[in-house]
Amino acid sequence: MTNQHSKIQNQIILTGDRATGPLHLGHYVGSLRQRVTLQNYNDQTILVADMQGLTDNANTPSKVSSNILNVVADYLAVGIDPAQTTICLQSQLPALSEITMYYSNLVTIARLERNPTVKAEINNKGFNRSVPAGFLTYPISQAADITAFNASLVPVGDDQLPMLEQTNEIVRKVNSLAGKKVLSECQPLLSKSSRLPNTDGRTKMSKTMGNAINLGSSPDEITAAVKSMYTDPMHINIKDPGKVEGNVVFTYLDAFHPDGAYIESLKEHYRTGGLGDATTKRILDECLQEILKPIRQERSRLLSEPSYLLQVLEQGSRIAKSKTERTLHRIKEVFGLNLFNLE
Amino acid sequence: MTNQHSKIQNQIILTGDRATGPLHLGHYVGSLRQRVTLQNYNDQTILVADMQGLTDNANTPSKVSSNILNVVADYLAVGIDPAQTTICLQSQLPALSEITMYYSNLVTIARLERNPTVKAEINNKGFNRSVPAGFLTYPISQAADITAFNASLVPVGDDQLPMLEQTNEIVRKVNSLAGKKVLSECQPLLSKSSRLPNTDGRTKMSKTMGNAINLGSSPDEITAAVKSMYTDPMHINIKDPGKVEGNVVFTYLDAFHPDGAYIESLKEHYRTGGLGDATTKRILDECLQEILKPIRQERSRLLSEPSYLLQVLEQGSRIAKSKTERTLHRIKEVFGLNLFNLE
Repeated sequence: MTNQHSKIQNQIILTGDRATGPLHLGHYVGSLRQRVTLQNYNDQTILVADMQGLTDNANTPSKVSSNILNVVADYLAVGIDPAQTTICLQSQLPALSEITMYYSNLVTIARLERNPTVKAEINNKGFNRSVPAGFLTYPISQAADITAFNASLVPVGDDQLPMLEQTNEIVRKVNSLAGKKVLSECQPLLSKSSRLPNTDGRTKMSKTMGNAINLGSSPDEITAAVKSMYTDPMHINIKDPGKVEGNVVFTYLDAFHPDGAYIESLKEHYRTGGLGDATTKRILDECLQEILKPIRQERSRLLSEPSYLLQVLEQGSRIAKSKTERTLHRIKEVFGLNLFNLE
Repeated sequence: MTNQHSKIQNQIILTGDRATGPLHLGHYVGSLRQRVTLQNYNDQTILVADMQGLTDNANTPSKVSSNILNVVADYLAVGIDPAQTTICLQSQLPALSEITMYYSNLVTIARLERNPTVKAEINNKGFNRSVPAGFLTYPISQAADITAFNASLVPVGDDQLPMLEQTNEIVRKVNSLAGKKVLSECQPLLSKSSRLPNTDGRTKMSKTMGNAINLGSSPDEITAAVKSMYTDPMHINIKDPGKVEGNVVFTYLDAFHPDGAYIESLKEHYRTGGLGDATTKRILDECLQEILKPIRQERSRLLSEPSYLLQVLEQGSRIAKSKTERTLHRIKEVFGLNLFNLE
C-alpha cells in the first residue's frame, strides 16, 4: 500500500464523489486509500456530491438518490473514520448553492466554455449546445464547494487541474472586489498513481461504463473480471516471452499487491517466458479477494444499518453546514448583503 | 388613478424589483399603483431582488446594496402595506438559490440563449459571449422565485412574457419527472398601461439612463424634468395647431391627471391651436407635484428610520423563508433528496 501522503499535515482538505454509483477499485487506488492516510493529520471533509450528480442525471434522479448511502458505506468500509473525517451531503448545505449564485456573476459563459475538462466531458456525453445549464456551470459550483470549506488542498487527477485554476480565478476576483483577502487559493494534491484502467485495458475504470470491479463485488464477480482481463494477445504459449507493459493484470498487481519485489520477479519471469496468464491471474485474484473481502463484509454490514449511515451523514452535514455558512457570511459581506440575519 | 385590477382576488401574486436604483414614475404607473390595489384581495409578495441585481453589477455591488432600503421606502411611501403585502429580500432566502440549482439541470444553455428577453438584454448591454453565467441563467432564478412562492399570477410587461413561458416549461418538467402535480403554472397579469416614456420621448423611463423622475425627486427636479419634456417640435407659436400623439406632456397627463375629461378638452384645444406648451407643462407640473409631494415626504421620513425599514424587510423575509422552504422540500422530494432535515 502506498503511503505517499503520510507527510502531509495541517491542511484543510476537501474531496468528494458524485453519488452516481457505488465506488470501485479505481476510486480505491486513486483516492480512497489516500484519504484514510490523510485523515490522521489533516482537517479532511468528504462531500457526497448529490447535487452535482444531478447535473447530467436530472432525468434519472434515482441514480443519484439510491447511491448516497452506498457511497457512505464505501467510505466507512475502506477505513474512513467519521470521527476524523467530516462526511457530508451537498444537498444539505444551502450555503453552497448561495455561494454558487454569487460566483456565477463573476464568471462568463465564454470562460466556462473554454474549461478543457468541461469541454471534454460535454463532447463525451454528446451534449453540444443542449448541455444543461447546471452542467456547463458546475465548475462554479465546485469552486463554491472548495472555497466554502476554505480548503487549502484538493486531491485531484491531472485532468481536474483546470477546475482548480477556475476556482483560484474566482478567489482572486472576490479578494480584488473586497480589497482584502477574504478567500484563500487552493493547491492541488496530485494523485501519484496513474488511473486504473478498465479490465479491457482501453478505458479508465468508470462507474458509468458498467465494467468496474466495485468495492462490493462478490468473489465470483471479482474472479470473472480478473479472468476477462486484457494481457498480451501475442503471448499464446506459456513458454513464450510476454509483454508486461499494457498488460492489465500487471498494472493491477502493481497497484494492489503488497509485495513489490515479488511482482518485479514475476514480471521478469513473464518477460523471459514460462509464466502463464492463468498463473498471474490467479495471483491477482487471490490478492484482490484478500483486499476486498473485509471491505465487502463491512460494507454489507453497514448497509444493513442505514440508520447509522444516515446518522454519520447527518452529523457531518451539521458540522459542514456551520462551516459553509461562515464562508457565505464573508462573501455576502463583500457584496454588502449582510443587512440582517434570520437565523 | 386606474383601478383596473380591483376585481382580481384570491390569487398568489409574486412581483418585485431589482434593487439597482430608486424607483421612478415609470414604476409608479407600471406596477406600484396596481400593487396597492392588488394587496387588498390577494396574497401578494414583493421580492427585493438584490441577488438578481448583482447578475450584471457584480463589479459595483454597492449599486445594489445601497438601494435596498430606498426601494423598501418607495414601496411603503406609495401605500404598499407590509401588513397586507409580504416584502422580502432575495438574499435572505437560501431556498431560492437551492431551487435554482435543481432547475439548472432541467434547462439547456441553448434554450437560455433563445430566450428573446435575455437575448435583447445581452445585446443592449454589449455582453455577447462575455455574458456572466448568472446573467444568462437569470430566467432560471426567476422561475425559482415564482414557483417558490407558488405564484398563480405574475404582473409583467409584455417584454417579460418569455420569462413566464420559461418558468412554465420548468414547472411542466418537474411535474413530469414527479409523475404528479408538484408545482403550478403561473399566468401573466399584463400591465394595461403602456410603458412611460422618458422625458425625451424616445426611450422608456429607466433607472440606469439617469433621466427618470424618481419618487423622491425634489420639486425643482420635477419642474426641470417637465420643462425639458419633448412636445411637438413643429408647434412653434401658441396659436398654431399642435400634435398630441408622441407629445410626452400629454402622455404623462393621460397617465397621471385624475380628471380624464379635462385632459381630453386640453387635447382638443391643443390640436385646434391656441394652447401653449408652457401652459400644458404648468398643468402637468402641478399634477405631478401634487402626487409626488406626499410620497416624497413619507419616503424621506421612512429613510430617516432605517431600523423600521429593516424590520419590515426582516419580518417579510421570515415569512417568505418558510414559504420557500416548503416548496424546496417538495422539489427535493422529486429528486429523492429528503434523506433528513437539519433544521
